[in-house]
Amino acid sequence: MTIPLDIPLKIGALIFPNMDQCDFTGPFEALARVPNSSFFTIWKEIEPVRDLAGMKLLPDTTIDEAPQLDVLLVPGGYGQEALMHDEAVLSFIRRQAAGARYVYSVCTGALLCGAAGLLQGKRATTHWTAMDVLPLYGAIPSDERVVIDGQFISAGGVTSGIDGSLIVVSLLRGETVAQELQLYMAYDPKPPFQAGSPATAPAPIFEAVMERARTITEQRLATGRAYQASKANA
Amino acid sequence: MTIPLDIPLKIGALIFPNMDQCDFTGPFEALARVPNSSFFTIWKEIEPVRDLAGMKLLPDTTIDEAPQLDVLLVPGGYGQEALMHDEAVLSFIRRQAAGARYVYSVCTGALLCGAAGLLQGKRATTHWTAMDVLPLYGAIPSDERVVIDGQFISAGGVTSGIDGSLIVVSLLRGETVAQELQLYMAYDPKPPFQAGSPATAPAPIFEAVMERARTITEQRLATGRAYQASKANA
Repeated sequence: MTIPLDIPLKIGALIFPNMDQCDFTGPFEALARVPNSSFFTIWKEIEPVRDLAGMKLLPDTTIDEAPQLDVLLVPGGYGQEALMHDEAVLSFIRRQAAGARYVYSVCTGALLCGAAGLLQGKRATTHWTAMDVLPLYGAIPSDERVVIDGQFISAGGVTSGIDGSLIVVSLLRGETVAQELQLYMAYDPKPPFQAGSPATAPAPIFEAVMERARTITEQRLATGRAYQASKANA
Repeated sequence: MTIPLDIPLKIGALIFPNMDQCDFTGPFEALARVPNSSFFTIWKEIEPVRDLAGMKLLPDTTIDEAPQLDVLLVPGGYGQEALMHDEAVLSFIRRQAAGARYVYSVCTGALLCGAAGLLQGKRATTHWTAMDVLPLYGAIPSDERVVIDGQFISAGGVTSGIDGSLIVVSLLRGETVAQELQLYMAYDPKPPFQAGSPATAPAPIFEAVMERARTITEQRLATGRAYQASKANA
């Protein structure tokens, strides 16, 4: 059941230092064009946010001043790890989730949602390097590219956020709107190589990328284990 | 022939008001991660640039202060039309092109390159709504998703910039590096609908998107015809 077009929608994204910009900018392309909607880019302060690779984004509003959203987009990237005990951010996610139609995580944004307590018993996905972290937050990991479990929608690594955003649009305003946006975006992808997933990448490519992510993956696992232990003791 | 890894590379993107952010942010994801390279985001002033749908991006440097680049990325979007007679921007593109290894246009960024005089006799592509504009700048239009003609590389609409960026990376640093980035980006796309190109979209979807672009398309054609006429009279 989509939402009647005369009901305006508020859609917003958390952005943060050392995020992966594409987790946000990919979905923005479709989500900011949903008919009869407003889009809010949100961080703690209205100051430039520098992504992992140095892109500078400017938020529209703050986590304290953002309105209740219909859809909250939570991107990921290495910087997610610094927010896993940030109560201001986690309570923002929790508060928004309580009133939102959908929470949509991309990449390791799912781990932030996990730390906020949203993943208990939910099917979810994340970047393939972080898949083993999901169960520590009570989630049931899935290697689908986009997973819908009730109010919680998650997309896998980075560019999967584009696929998921078109699904979110179709849930909000129907398939015709989503298809029109797909055509506007010329989203008829032709990857030049067969290396986009652990299943298709040549083994040395897989090993190199895995190795490069080792430190952050170990941190994410340690943070997840500490979360799990704290819940077991509570 | 790729470039030896010990030779540092400078890669940069022009950004501008009412651009389509995804033409820039999609390619940024891979281009800003090229080993031994620096990335520069460039506009006339170091002030926030607001994209067509309201995303705010902050440039690193200006067209007057940017160094000679090895790769210049030229994105598109409706705002391209306002720059088609902007001599400061066009001479920046011309000057950079004269010293760059590659000029890489995404979407209607190709038209800016055309106005700068770079497309004469070149095979090129652009957003499908603007394909008929290309010949007015002396280009030979192609409906391939990514076109390489010597120093000039062009990608089609919006998301095709991601495909093209991986090709640019492979030209610069080789296929292994490009494949590692593709895996990091989890670029194994699964579009949820078959509507990403004029050839695959249902007819009513095609007509709706075409109709929505009618005004800007007519402007682009008029600008192109005026360019062609000025060259014929020159």
